[in-house]
Amino acid sequence: QGTRDHAPAQAALRDRLLSAVVSCFKRHGAAAIDTPVLELRETLMGKYGEDTKLIYELQDQGGELLALRYDLTVPFARYLAMNKVNNMKRYHVAKVYRRDNPATTRGRYREFYQCDFDIAGQFDPMIPDAECLKIVHEILSDLQLGDFVIKVNDRRILNGVFAVCGVPESKFIPACSTVDKLDKMPWEEVRSEMVGEKGLSPEAADRIGEYVQLHGGLDLIEQLLQDPKLSQNKLAKEGLGDMKLLFEYLALFGITGKVSFDLSLARGLDYYTGVIFEAVLLQQENEHVEEPVSVGSVAGGGRYDGLVGMFDPKGRKVPCVGVSIGIERIFSILEQRLEASGEKLRTTETQVLVATPQKHLLAARLKLISELWDAGIKAEMLYKKDPKLLKQLQYCEDTGIPLAAIVGEQELADGVVKLRDVATRKEVRM
Amino acid sequence: QGTRDHAPAQAALRDRLLSAVVSCFKRHGAAAIDTPVLELRETLMGKYGEDTKLIYELQDQGGELLALRYDLTVPFARYLAMNKVNNMKRYHVAKVYRRDNPATTRGRYREFYQCDFDIAGQFDPMIPDAECLKIVHEILSDLQLGDFVIKVNDRRILNGVFAVCGVPESKFIPACSTVDKLDKMPWEEVRSEMVGEKGLSPEAADRIGEYVQLHGGLDLIEQLLQDPKLSQNKLAKEGLGDMKLLFEYLALFGITGKVSFDLSLARGLDYYTGVIFEAVLLQQENEHVEEPVSVGSVAGGGRYDGLVGMFDPKGRKVPCVGVSIGIERIFSILEQRLEASGEKLRTTETQVLVATPQKHLLAARLKLISELWDAGIKAEMLYKKDPKLLKQLQYCEDTGIPLAAIVGEQELADGVVKLRDVATRKEVRM
Repeated sequence: QGTRDHAPAQAALRDRLLSAVVSCFKRHGAAAIDTPVLELRETLMGKYGEDTKLIYELQDQGGELLALRYDLTVPFARYLAMNKVNNMKRYHVAKVYRRDNPATTRGRYREFYQCDFDIAGQFDPMIPDAECLKIVHEILSDLQLGDFVIKVNDRRILNGVFAVCGVPESKFIPACSTVDKLDKMPWEEVRSEMVGEKGLSPEAADRIGEYVQLHGGLDLIEQLLQDPKLSQNKLAKEGLGDMKLLFEYLALFGITGKVSFDLSLARGLDYYTGVIFEAVLLQQENEHVEEPVSVGSVAGGGRYDGLVGMFDPKGRKVPCVGVSIGIERIFSILEQRLEASGEKLRTTETQVLVATPQKHLLAARLKLISELWDAGIKAEMLYKKDPKLLKQLQYCEDTGIPLAAIVGEQELADGVVKLRDVATRKEVRM
Repeated sequence: QGTRDHAPAQAALRDRLLSAVVSCFKRHGAAAIDTPVLELRETLMGKYGEDTKLIYELQDQGGELLALRYDLTVPFARYLAMNKVNNMKRYHVAKVYRRDNPATTRGRYREFYQCDFDIAGQFDPMIPDAECLKIVHEILSDLQLGDFVIKVNDRRILNGVFAVCGVPESKFIPACSTVDKLDKMPWEEVRSEMVGEKGLSPEAADRIGEYVQLHGGLDLIEQLLQDPKLSQNKLAKEGLGDMKLLFEYLALFGITGKVSFDLSLARGLDYYTGVIFEAVLLQQENEHVEEPVSVGSVAGGGRYDGLVGMFDPKGRKVPCVGVSIGIERIFSILEQRLEASGEKLRTTETQVLVATPQKHLLAARLKLISELWDAGIKAEMLYKKDPKLLKQLQYCEDTGIPLAAIVGEQELADGVVKLRDVATRKEVRM
């Protein structure tokens, strides 16, 4: 349940998509690492907040207690701590596992790919963070998914907002996860969850409401830096200062047009400590709609400066920032688009079919195809002793093989091969 | 235990190895498929003989009872049956899981990659089987692993041998798994296991011994086809007839020099029904050793005509033959060889480092690198506001970046970039 096989056409599409993402990661100088699908249970516990219950555990068959990885970030942090790596730019494309309620039409599975790029190390502020946003911008532009916006916020700003609105520190995390729902429900509902379920005072909730419904650019950052309450809060001030620097760098990258400083962005995971971001596709359903409709998040990430320290025996910290591309949702979109276009993706790369027009020529086919393979040419033949020529040409048309190399009795006698262009039917002897 | 992280240098080597294997599979016209790491437990049970106890099971957390896949062959058969596919040439490169005793120095892990190529469908005999052997030959030759031999046998011949030696049919499988140990122990020990543990009569064991110590080529096939006892056995006769045909095709492929018909080859898995094969590397330890020493199996496979039918509600059969490349052992060999050579594998593909020779030029670097990325050029910069030029050039040397694009105050003023070849120190303004 919640998993799926990929048939060749899907595997080919996925391959194309993953290649585009990986080539962007490589363009930014990332190296690949690989970690096991299995992790010790204790490695995963306490890292994901409420979602820990969604972790797949392995049966105790003797030996260590194991679980399937839930994301690629925690294993990366574990890797850095275990190998005492202080400094690394890596990507990792692999499957992760969540015992979530599957919603397969929207691309939500229990087994799914994640494509992560992360920068670990102590650097000057906001330079790696800006690069992560540049990567999201490049990938979403390359894939031509339509218009998108990258929402940016900072956990320090959010916590500062909670503090100046009179929320006790113990309630920052629950307040945060409620704010995160603002992309799916109106403020009124979020407010009532804050007051009802999370136990915030109505006054605190109202004050929070004034902040978290704000979004904008550099102007909003400047405005909040002047805000009489926020500007008194150390955390918020730090976060806003860094946000300003981030926007400066994003302007040099030329991508501020697609970036929105959005105070409603909170993100669910516990481990974020600074900048957070999330990219959503916008869908202009028709021209009369004023606000474009969001069709869901396709990339997300942020800064997590404390996670590596949780795995280090001495608590040695390695600041990290990273981005995860939501490949499954993008795959669903591309799949639907391909279907609508009627285009048929080739599932093989075969260049030439080795064919014979008469009987008793299997040996000639085997000899020729062997020569082609040894020369590095992608070649196939039918696994029949005496196939009809028509069947062989039909196979080329069905599978998109552009050429047929035909050896008949005449060609054998003359020591040549007849090369046929399947589409144009033109033939040359060679 | 028995799993490992791949650091960038290892990941890069593995990538190179997997690409070589996959490009061979594609050269033979295979399409990719993907199946989940998780399978229903019942799918895996009863397919692997004694090794079923090595399957990793997931904890029952409600819902289906799951296990981690043990190989890629059973999931492939399940896929064919579930999707009613009668005909497919596919490859699959993915990790599989076995709760075996790890022997990591010899490349035996609990999580490891398999690289499988399989041909499913009803075809004329031995044509797909011969292609599988050709593939093994191509891959082992391409990778330049040194001399190797591909041992070939047929389950039908083995069963015929057991029958004519007086083994009751119920003991074919245990006898088979004992014969399989002949590559690791001398005949005397195998014989005593047959008689002691497996309960064969000493006479039967002795008669088996006369057969299973034979190996050769077409001559041996001809000899056995004339064997007064074996030639009377229907199964053996079929197997020998097909073996003769196989050698004919392998001769056309020009690879009989590396193929040995070896009656001691049995292979452990239950599901094989016809041709079986296994490739081993030979190691000429020194010139005085007469027989080359085998360093273990690096590829194996065979025909399994009954497996798909086990998953089909109507028992509909789809004959299959396939090969699995033992990538982990090959990886160990390549890793040791690389280490011995002292060669350093680059872990990134960065073409150019964007550098500045003076302070206060971060903006210039960010602008230039952004242009390079947008033009598809693989570029990096240091994440510092004001790095020293020497540090920047040192980074190029450490990571193998061939070029540095330098923008200083003079270059900015002139509207040029200074491109420096890191190795030769030659510079051009452009």
